[in-house]
Amino acid sequence: MPASLGELSQISGARLEGDAGCIINALNTLKLAKDGEISFLSNRHYAHQLPQTNASAVILSEDDFKNCPTNSLVSETPYLAYAKIANHLYPSTELPEYIDESAVFGSECSIDDSASISANVVVGNNVVIRSGSYIGPGCVIEDNVEIGENTSLVANVTLCHDVVLGKNVILHPGVVIGADGFGLAQEKDQWIKIPQIGSVKISDNVEVGANSTIDRGAIEATIIGPGVKIDNQVQIGHNVVVGENTAIAGCTAIGGSSVIGKRCMIGGAVAINGHIEIVDDVIITAMSGVANSIKSPGVYSSGLPVTDNRIWRRNVIRFKKLDEIIKKIMSRLE
Amino acid sequence: MPASLGELSQISGARLEGDAGCIINALNTLKLAKDGEISFLSNRHYAHQLPQTNASAVILSEDDFKNCPTNSLVSETPYLAYAKIANHLYPSTELPEYIDESAVFGSECSIDDSASISANVVVGNNVVIRSGSYIGPGCVIEDNVEIGENTSLVANVTLCHDVVLGKNVILHPGVVIGADGFGLAQEKDQWIKIPQIGSVKISDNVEVGANSTIDRGAIEATIIGPGVKIDNQVQIGHNVVVGENTAIAGCTAIGGSSVIGKRCMIGGAVAINGHIEIVDDVIITAMSGVANSIKSPGVYSSGLPVTDNRIWRRNVIRFKKLDEIIKKIMSRLE
Amino acid sequence: MPASLGELSQISGARLEGDAGCIINALNTLKLAKDGEISFLSNRHYAHQLPQTNASAVILSEDDFKNCPTNSLVSETPYLAYAKIANHLYPSTELPEYIDESAVFGSECSIDDSASISANVVVGNNVVIRSGSYIGPGCVIEDNVEIGENTSLVANVTLCHDVVLGKNVILHPGVVIGADGFGLAQEKDQWIKIPQIGSVKISDNVEVGANSTIDRGAIEATIIGPGVKIDNQVQIGHNVVVGENTAIAGCTAIGGSSVIGKRCMIGGAVAINGHIEIVDDVIITAMSGVANSIKSPGVYSSGLPVTDNRIWRRNVIRFKKLDEIIKKIMSRLE
Repeated sequence: MPASLGELSQISGARLEGDAGCIINALNTLKLAKDGEISFLSNRHYAHQLPQTNASAVILSEDDFKNCPTNSLVSETPYLAYAKIANHLYPSTELPEYIDESAVFGSECSIDDSASISANVVVGNNVVIRSGSYIGPGCVIEDNVEIGENTSLVANVTLCHDVVLGKNVILHPGVVIGADGFGLAQEKDQWIKIPQIGSVKISDNVEVGANSTIDRGAIEATIIGPGVKIDNQVQIGHNVVVGENTAIAGCTAIGGSSVIGKRCMIGGAVAINGHIEIVDDVIITAMSGVANSIKSPGVYSSGLPVTDNRIWRRNVIRFKKLDEIIKKIMSRLE
Repeated sequence: MPASLGELSQISGARLEGDAGCIINALNTLKLAKDGEISFLSNRHYAHQLPQTNASAVILSEDDFKNCPTNSLVSETPYLAYAKIANHLYPSTELPEYIDESAVFGSECSIDDSASISANVVVGNNVVIRSGSYIGPGCVIEDNVEIGENTSLVANVTLCHDVVLGKNVILHPGVVIGADGFGLAQEKDQWIKIPQIGSVKISDNVEVGANSTIDRGAIEATIIGPGVKIDNQVQIGHNVVVGENTAIAGCTAIGGSSVIGKRCMIGGAVAINGHIEIVDDVIITAMSGVANSIKSPGVYSSGLPVTDNRIWRRNVIRFKKLDEIIKKIMSRLE
Repeated sequence: MPASLGELSQISGARLEGDAGCIINALNTLKLAKDGEISFLSNRHYAHQLPQTNASAVILSEDDFKNCPTNSLVSETPYLAYAKIANHLYPSTELPEYIDESAVFGSECSIDDSASISANVVVGNNVVIRSGSYIGPGCVIEDNVEIGENTSLVANVTLCHDVVLGKNVILHPGVVIGADGFGLAQEKDQWIKIPQIGSVKISDNVEVGANSTIDRGAIEATIIGPGVKIDNQVQIGHNVVVGENTAIAGCTAIGGSSVIGKRCMIGGAVAINGHIEIVDDVIITAMSGVANSIKSPGVYSSGLPVTDNRIWRRNVIRFKKLDEIIKKIMSRLE
């Protein structure tokens, strides 16, 4: 959906320096952009590519403006301006309003006429699918599920019974919502399975990445707050509550019954213990482990970055005796 | 399935203090339970909610009994008593005995009349599905698979060729059993794939969480012992053997050919090296890495919990030179 | 597919010591091999099983030859010789050339006559599937996808729109290629989704393990080079480039826009930051975290192996104050 730079300036709130009538057809990187394409610069890493760009316009900050060889859209938040412009140039594709004849439905379902149900979808009993929603090929929706307006299940998604999804939710392929939580009681050597009778409630504007899993609650529901963004292969245990607008990067695991605050940013490959609380506005960097509750906003970390293997081997040997070594040193110092 | 407190006392083995005729319809948390509902207290974290509960009865320990404002079911193992009562109040739903007309079968299959095969299931050749089993929507079962009695594949599960499942097995959505192990030989710069000709044998009473994967053996089978419980997004490499009644929490990875003992408890996000052995009765806490065999029962750990990011940055710099620093200190102390 | 030892010597390049006419029907472990079966020894761990083996022949190194009680195939690279022999004894099964009647196709597709399309496959518009390819049950292929010759999608695989696969690619069950990358811009407290308009290009001879995910690029494509081997539950972010013949073990996560060199070996459960570069010929051991670019070939590590839990607790307390403790010690030493 092409637009003039004048329009893109309005859409993004960025100040135009240059030709308001210049027509933009596509988005591209600084390096590859050609005539008729717009690019952006928000990461210092790519600043050296700016002077040589062949883009017709670049979205950038005031600082970079002086080095721009072409039309500029100057913004205090160039990445956000890029997001807005990208959404204008690449609007969501209009979905067909149709129900594929291979889809299978249970009884007592309420499917809005404007919803789209793709091939090989299986829908259980008493399911509600609201207007504008898209159920991609191969999705399985068990009994008593409720899906809000304009929500998309891309493909091969599984929603277990009684799950509730809000509006504008996007679930990427392979997502599983509402599988049983890992609830077990020990009797002598054996494990007794505990029925997982709670549900999962996914609020409006949530996005969940490919192959992520969110378990149903043991008694109460697992709750994902409005605007939460979850990357691929994230695991969320039963009865977790994730607060509004928190973002969780790939391969992170959150143990059962933990409560994560609002506006948190959780890096990739993080492990968060069960039964803890993390307050609002906490940032946890990638590969960290969170064993206990975090009671103040801030940035928290624990991952160890790599070193040369030989040095690491020696450091590990020391680490395994760290307390003992420090005690010995301290005693000699006295 | 409602029951009187007298019945629930019998079912759970917990001592009733109160009205044996009181009828219980549902289970709920201490905080939310209403009249006609039973709750439980087994985690100290929630003890403060006991005095205010509106539950009609609470399952709890002798220590908490004195603070209970209502009928009590007193047990030395309140969590286990809760599990038994929950299983009585919420029995598994009776499954329909039917084969959906959209299911596709190969030749020479033996499907018991009491098995249930859902919509869009694809079954290969020479497959055996025993009595009472449930194959949920979208499951794919390749050739020569054998599925024991009362086993459930919830939805979108894939069983590759020659996999054998025992009785009362539960596989949650997205589980993949019997994909090729990661077997590669190097020839100059290239990788040659090694045919994975072993199978996977899943014993009775095993449960596997959503999107977990268990690879087929290179030559012999990968073996999951009876009563093993596996959470979501767990990866088990080829030729692993997991001993009876071991429990493995979410996002844990076990490298090929490792042997895990019986009654082990492995926390979430743990990584276990290939070709090692772990004896019976080992507990590994969350986010640990197991590089070498563990030869004695006990509790083992290695995860690092988060600290404030600035402190962590300084500690990491020290850690990267830990051996060097300690050597320097030691030499000065001599 | 049985063969004589003479033939297997030729196929593998290993030197035969023994009866060239001996017919081999199967492969087995040293411990379980019977008459008519061949075994191999490449891992010292199993050397003690050699003298008692009942195999008809063993593939092994010059060093082990003297201890072999039966025919020997002596090789400098016994594991590679085993791979070649296994591929001869267990050739890929011939796939049926047919299109199952339950498969659903969009318009303008080009499906080669020799391709096999299994039950409940859903194919979008404008899809190309070349000769000899196999699309297993339950796979979903969105619009504009291109699949090269002799490529296999085992089952329940999802290929999102515009994904391109080369020749001889194997995608195991549950793999998702081309889901949207995790691209978000922050506006006040909310996240704005950035359209992911790039694609994914998977080169020839790539293998991707069960439930792994490879995201589509934000603008340019995510690229997996020729001969790359990826294990189960690996997550590869948008715009990552993985170089030729690199191998990535299970549960590893690679952040967006990172560039991994050729011939790298990345262990299991590794986390690699986004926007970094790793040169060719880097080995990263299991459970490591890579925060910054790696500029020289070599072996790198950072995982911490387990110790007894009580010792670990004390070490962790010291680690959390490592910088402070070392400063204190240093100041006393001056």
